[in-house]
Amino acid sequence: MRELTTDHISQQFNSELETLRQHFLTMGGVVENQVSDAIHALLESDSHLAEEVKEKDATVNQLDGIIDEECTRILAKRQPAATDLRMILSISKAVAELERMGDEAKKIADHALKLIHEGESPRGYVEISRIGQMVARMVRESLDAYARLDLDLAVSVAKADRTVDLEYKTAIRSLITYMMEDPRSISRVFNVIWVLRSLERIGDHSRHLCQHLVYLINGVNVRHVPAEELEKIAQDEKKA
Amino acid sequence: MRELTTDHISQQFNSELETLRQHFLTMGGVVENQVSDAIHALLESDSHLAEEVKEKDATVNQLDGIIDEECTRILAKRQPAATDLRMILSISKAVAELERMGDEAKKIADHALKLIHEGESPRGYVEISRIGQMVARMVRESLDAYARLDLDLAVSVAKADRTVDLEYKTAIRSLITYMMEDPRSISRVFNVIWVLRSLERIGDHSRHLCQHLVYLINGVNVRHVPAEELEKIAQDEKKA
Repeated sequence: MRELTTDHISQQFNSELETLRQHFLTMGGVVENQVSDAIHALLESDSHLAEEVKEKDATVNQLDGIIDEECTRILAKRQPAATDLRMILSISKAVAELERMGDEAKKIADHALKLIHEGESPRGYVEISRIGQMVARMVRESLDAYARLDLDLAVSVAKADRTVDLEYKTAIRSLITYMMEDPRSISRVFNVIWVLRSLERIGDHSRHLCQHLVYLINGVNVRHVPAEELEKIAQDEKKA
Repeated sequence: MRELTTDHISQQFNSELETLRQHFLTMGGVVENQVSDAIHALLESDSHLAEEVKEKDATVNQLDGIIDEECTRILAKRQPAATDLRMILSISKAVAELERMGDEAKKIADHALKLIHEGESPRGYVEISRIGQMVARMVRESLDAYARLDLDLAVSVAKADRTVDLEYKTAIRSLITYMMEDPRSISRVFNVIWVLRSLERIGDHSRHLCQHLVYLINGVNVRHVPAEELEKIAQDEKKA
């Protein structure tokens, strides 16, 4: 893989970029925990853990603000070009994805609390567990890909989102069938459906995160490129 | 309202910024039409119009790419500071919101086609019409606010999102009650529920758009500030 750090006249600038990267990865770590804790809280009916997930929202918002200010300050003060500029723009966009993943984790925690107080759903936990594991892994791997600037891993995360989308659709279809058979359960099953929807969105955000990384590494905007083509771009990049 | 254009040594730079702003407003116009057309297509069972909404996705993605490249090029070449830097960063973020609004409009068009082919939902059209009107107005006004750099309008859009959220929750609750009474309708009602969800999200994106505008105008990051406080910040800004 190519080396992304360039020699800067200013040692100070290098350290600013490294701080920015560290803050981004810290924020990523908090959101990663929010996602996996929200899924656990729901599956284990753990209201204490669900409340913790909700409380972490403040930390995420705070980090979001800090990173945003750092990006703006570096752009104004250092006027970076080429790779440094790409890194800052890519982090600025990736942060927005993380922030929204955190929002979805908070929604899952809300539904976990509703299910604890209003009564369990008769169905859907198996699906949440399976899709939840896939999505939690996508979040972790997209952050690993960022930490190691790993293009292959980024492409594999983008591809995993396809499987999540398919599993999600199958789960919704089977829950609709179940509700038709037992209409009294509709209200409770709905909590599960919103959770699945949030998981599916977290998967989307992980994919976007990886697309921002591809832009960072090779400077090609791939936000609207399907996963197969993304793989080709990654291979071309390695040959180059 | 304060004047945001600053005197640039280079006339060329001014014209680059103006082009950027124009492209942004063009993209906004396309997305605004996508949203209102998607709602119309659904309410009037117009499959031709629904297909048109889906086709416009390519234009939106193309403009997204163009604007993104312009932002990066201006940052690299002109190394702007202060207001110009804020304008570029704000547009770069606002474009991401527009792009996602377009995605939601496309989803609404997909559900419109499903309802045409699989049969109408027995309920939910009144709600889609009412919430759809509110959301279409939010989209239009958030773009107007951008075009005129109108802080008051931005705050009023952010506040309108509250009403949309309440209306959305009421609509979902009443549809759940209906499905319990007529479980055979669940599958068709679901198409309507996903449409309401998309409308609610378009409202969220409009609110975010306005928050990016507040940042552009007064340099304060208000992404995590509730609507009442936003109003106060806007008033303080005018006094300043």
